[in-house]
Amino acid sequence: MPEMLYDSRKIYYEVYGEGEPLIILNGIMMSHLSWKLFIPQLSKDKKVILFDFLDQGKSDKPYDYDYTHDLQVEVLKALIDHLNIKKTNIFGISYGGEIALQFAIKHKNYVNKLLLFNTTAYTTPWLKDIGRGWINAAKTYDPETFYNVSIPYIYSPKFYTENYEWMENRKNILKGVFTKDFLDAMVRLIQSSEDYDIRCKLNEVEVDTLIVGADYDFVTPLFEQEYIHNNIRDSKFMVIKNCGHASMYEKPNEFVSQINGFLSFEKKLTTL
Amino acid sequence: MPEMLYDSRKIYYEVYGEGEPLIILNGIMMSHLSWKLFIPQLSKDKKVILFDFLDQGKSDKPYDYDYTHDLQVEVLKALIDHLNIKKTNIFGISYGGEIALQFAIKHKNYVNKLLLFNTTAYTTPWLKDIGRGWINAAKTYDPETFYNVSIPYIYSPKFYTENYEWMENRKNILKGVFTKDFLDAMVRLIQSSEDYDIRCKLNEVEVDTLIVGADYDFVTPLFEQEYIHNNIRDSKFMVIKNCGHASMYEKPNEFVSQINGFLSFEKKLTTL
Amino acid sequence: MPEMLYDSRKIYYEVYGEGEPLIILNGIMMSHLSWKLFIPQLSKDKKVILFDFLDQGKSDKPYDYDYTHDLQVEVLKALIDHLNIKKTNIFGISYGGEIALQFAIKHKNYVNKLLLFNTTAYTTPWLKDIGRGWINAAKTYDPETFYNVSIPYIYSPKFYTENYEWMENRKNILKGVFTKDFLDAMVRLIQSSEDYDIRCKLNEVEVDTLIVGADYDFVTPLFEQEYIHNNIRDSKFMVIKNCGHASMYEKPNEFVSQINGFLSFEKKLTTL
Amino acid sequence: MPEMLYDSRKIYYEVYGEGEPLIILNGIMMSHLSWKLFIPQLSKDKKVILFDFLDQGKSDKPYDYDYTHDLQVEVLKALIDHLNIKKTNIFGISYGGEIALQFAIKHKNYVNKLLLFNTTAYTTPWLKDIGRGWINAAKTYDPETFYNVSIPYIYSPKFYTENYEWMENRKNILKGVFTKDFLDAMVRLIQSSEDYDIRCKLNEVEVDTLIVGADYDFVTPLFEQEYIHNNIRDSKFMVIKNCGHASMYEKPNEFVSQINGFLSFEKKLTTL
Repeated sequence: MPEMLYDSRKIYYEVYGEGEPLIILNGIMMSHLSWKLFIPQLSKDKKVILFDFLDQGKSDKPYDYDYTHDLQVEVLKALIDHLNIKKTNIFGISYGGEIALQFAIKHKNYVNKLLLFNTTAYTTPWLKDIGRGWINAAKTYDPETFYNVSIPYIYSPKFYTENYEWMENRKNILKGVFTKDFLDAMVRLIQSSEDYDIRCKLNEVEVDTLIVGADYDFVTPLFEQEYIHNNIRDSKFMVIKNCGHASMYEKPNEFVSQINGFLSFEKKLTTL
Repeated sequence: MPEMLYDSRKIYYEVYGEGEPLIILNGIMMSHLSWKLFIPQLSKDKKVILFDFLDQGKSDKPYDYDYTHDLQVEVLKALIDHLNIKKTNIFGISYGGEIALQFAIKHKNYVNKLLLFNTTAYTTPWLKDIGRGWINAAKTYDPETFYNVSIPYIYSPKFYTENYEWMENRKNILKGVFTKDFLDAMVRLIQSSEDYDIRCKLNEVEVDTLIVGADYDFVTPLFEQEYIHNNIRDSKFMVIKNCGHASMYEKPNEFVSQINGFLSFEKKLTTL
Repeated sequence: MPEMLYDSRKIYYEVYGEGEPLIILNGIMMSHLSWKLFIPQLSKDKKVILFDFLDQGKSDKPYDYDYTHDLQVEVLKALIDHLNIKKTNIFGISYGGEIALQFAIKHKNYVNKLLLFNTTAYTTPWLKDIGRGWINAAKTYDPETFYNVSIPYIYSPKFYTENYEWMENRKNILKGVFTKDFLDAMVRLIQSSEDYDIRCKLNEVEVDTLIVGADYDFVTPLFEQEYIHNNIRDSKFMVIKNCGHASMYEKPNEFVSQINGFLSFEKKLTTL
Repeated sequence: MPEMLYDSRKIYYEVYGEGEPLIILNGIMMSHLSWKLFIPQLSKDKKVILFDFLDQGKSDKPYDYDYTHDLQVEVLKALIDHLNIKKTNIFGISYGGEIALQFAIKHKNYVNKLLLFNTTAYTTPWLKDIGRGWINAAKTYDPETFYNVSIPYIYSPKFYTENYEWMENRKNILKGVFTKDFLDAMVRLIQSSEDYDIRCKLNEVEVDTLIVGADYDFVTPLFEQEYIHNNIRDSKFMVIKNCGHASMYEKPNEFVSQINGFLSFEKKLTTL
């Protein structure tokens, strides 16, 4: 059972394949299980490391623990040290992108390339209040309420509508996932993001960075990724069209293609 | 007290100014009170009629009543007859735009020009599930829960963030508005929209129609207005930039300007 | 024959209707004749003043004259004085919008409201080189060459394609318009714009300003109008969808509606 | 000297690297030389084949030859047979994408994956007239005229403006390239595209297809790629932001990343 302890809390991880390391940082509702589909394509020539943040998946959910993103950043560092990795590519989506950004600023020397999908540099008051709505819904402990209040906005309206049967099926699965334990952990994860604001430090990111957004992302709208792109020197920016916040589920091929493509070459090209 | 009875239910309305009639149809959470600011500019040379749908504002809230949009369409027709109006311009935003569209198809002869803002021709499964989340939140009868779950998505993220003090003030006002009676009525209004789908009849709209959308409308996204525009022959289409679903609050001048401009001339121009 | 002399050059103008004055400033290839269609709708309750810049329409075309925008700004001031107007609304499209902007900065007291359509605050190197291509084409004195090199880019690809018969007809008309005299004047008008850059003075515009752009404007792309909007405090911004640079020809109703709507009310509204 | 004969005309090509073949089809003004920068990144684990169409680069420029795209499609087939390739990935940009599309429909069995960048399924009347302007400019045999009339529109306004020194340098290089021979060939290449319209056959494309567009492409605007995407079943679609028609020069890293990423995995993923 691949796990390590951080401050006496269990942190769960999985490793696939051989080659340059790529650590995958989950979105807030995700766990290592969410990446099953992608492992074969991502790990062909890479060492892919999945990992559950504190309060996610099989990692500990310490109900009496008040924390911010800082803690997750240190958990990530501990994992990298535990795995004896000196330098790694880091991918993060949404919550995971936020941790990735902060890690790349605080622990520069550990990072090779940075891949930021559907994420933001700042929990705006708008996003904070949306989070509060999710917290309110979580505290009803009614899985259907939590689903209705959060999930539709995570998908693009067209995908959700055109694949409604799949969404209904997903709703049934998620209703089993949204237990009291899960929802309490979700509240803590949301709260850990409330004061997040790394905007003024983006210019400290010096590694090769890819930023990917989606035109129907209603949680971290495209202008958030544009902001990151404009403030990280020489970063690359791509947009997945007709796609919402959960880009890996809506456009799995475009998603994997961005990761593999960006990691496929060493030297930056310039025509200028 | 300007009111009329429809099927023994009280329907409240107000009339301002003189000239060609313009009936204003509220969005789902609105009432005649929401338009106070706009009356002077709109009624300068028009007869403006405000009006609360059943379950809105000062109109009756019949708790034992199951209904669909069809009822509100007939309430609107009764009001127009009651006011002895033969032909009128009709403006509707969101829920009001949905009623306006259906009215213009069913009661063609009553309509002069049609103005549709931030609205849709169809309650998609996505929108229905978002409505279900609002219903779940309403049924907690906690005003803060209902606010957090619904209001942030009604504004553009940038407006909400840049005017957070105003939003906080608004939250305090709305917490007083979101009483049990209001929330029960809201549930019925949302339910009345669940089966709405007028897509296949849009080509029956023959009056001069203006469609206005906003680029950060996360409730009825811009492609919904584009769809309406593409299916109503010769309709006009404008986009308010940097604006969310509640366009009249975010961009009051652009909002009024669209209405007054579209109503300012009789004959359609063509260069072709 | 309504004309005045400026520095011994004839300046042609026409006046329509009664009410608050609205001066219309032509785009670079236009003349007072271009507005014929719009006069009835615009002049219903306004005094509309059409006017040909030096080197346009019926105004003088002084072949030995080297000038910049500054001259046209002073020609405009002379016309306003000649007409005994103290304060006026000014509309400008493209070249006309550039003159309008500079006039509003230099002669603040003359301006009531400012309406800027499909225009820019700066002749970028990109736009300058496009202008050079037009000059190269003009100097062949072949009307077809000048048409092909300039006109298609002035329309949105879809409008041009869907109304190709109309465009072909227009080509035949324009081939008669593109005489040697016209093309020589065109060269001077283009050259008068080469050093235009008012970016750093936009914050001096204090009058109520409307900015209108079009999503398929390939001459002064939408980001140019966004730039103006972001730098003129409290300006209003609207986008005409599916429309190119020649917005008045592609979307005449939306076009007039923006002007009439913006001029319809005195006081700015604010919800905040 | 790697060349073959097609109908007694010399066709020039170059081969780099080992692995799955990827044939690169040039845009209309390009040649095999245009890809120098990209070879190391593209050919690391692939066999990359560069190739000049008839009337391009080192291939013959038969001045007495009237042809359409059909000829270039057959030239491509002859080259693939000549190289003894049974199935190949094909990349095409602009003109090259048009040939790629037609090849994939006519010679299905030869194609593995299809990569279409900044291209269109149809020479609209708008695009045809723009081509006519280029022809008019070419026939002046003045390199500067041809440059000014064609090149600025190939780049995004922002890139052109921000990298004006590089563009000026490029202008000097291109003035040497735009010889009489080159311009005569250019006229034939443009004419070969005038009747191109493959729209009704897009549904016959059955191979895995990537479509890439750019938001400031003013030659083949983004809606052209959206059209292709909507009509090729299960195709993938990505947008390079802040980028014009010449995407490989403006965004070389994003460009290569799309190619390598899309070619990196065999099996399509689906979450559904």
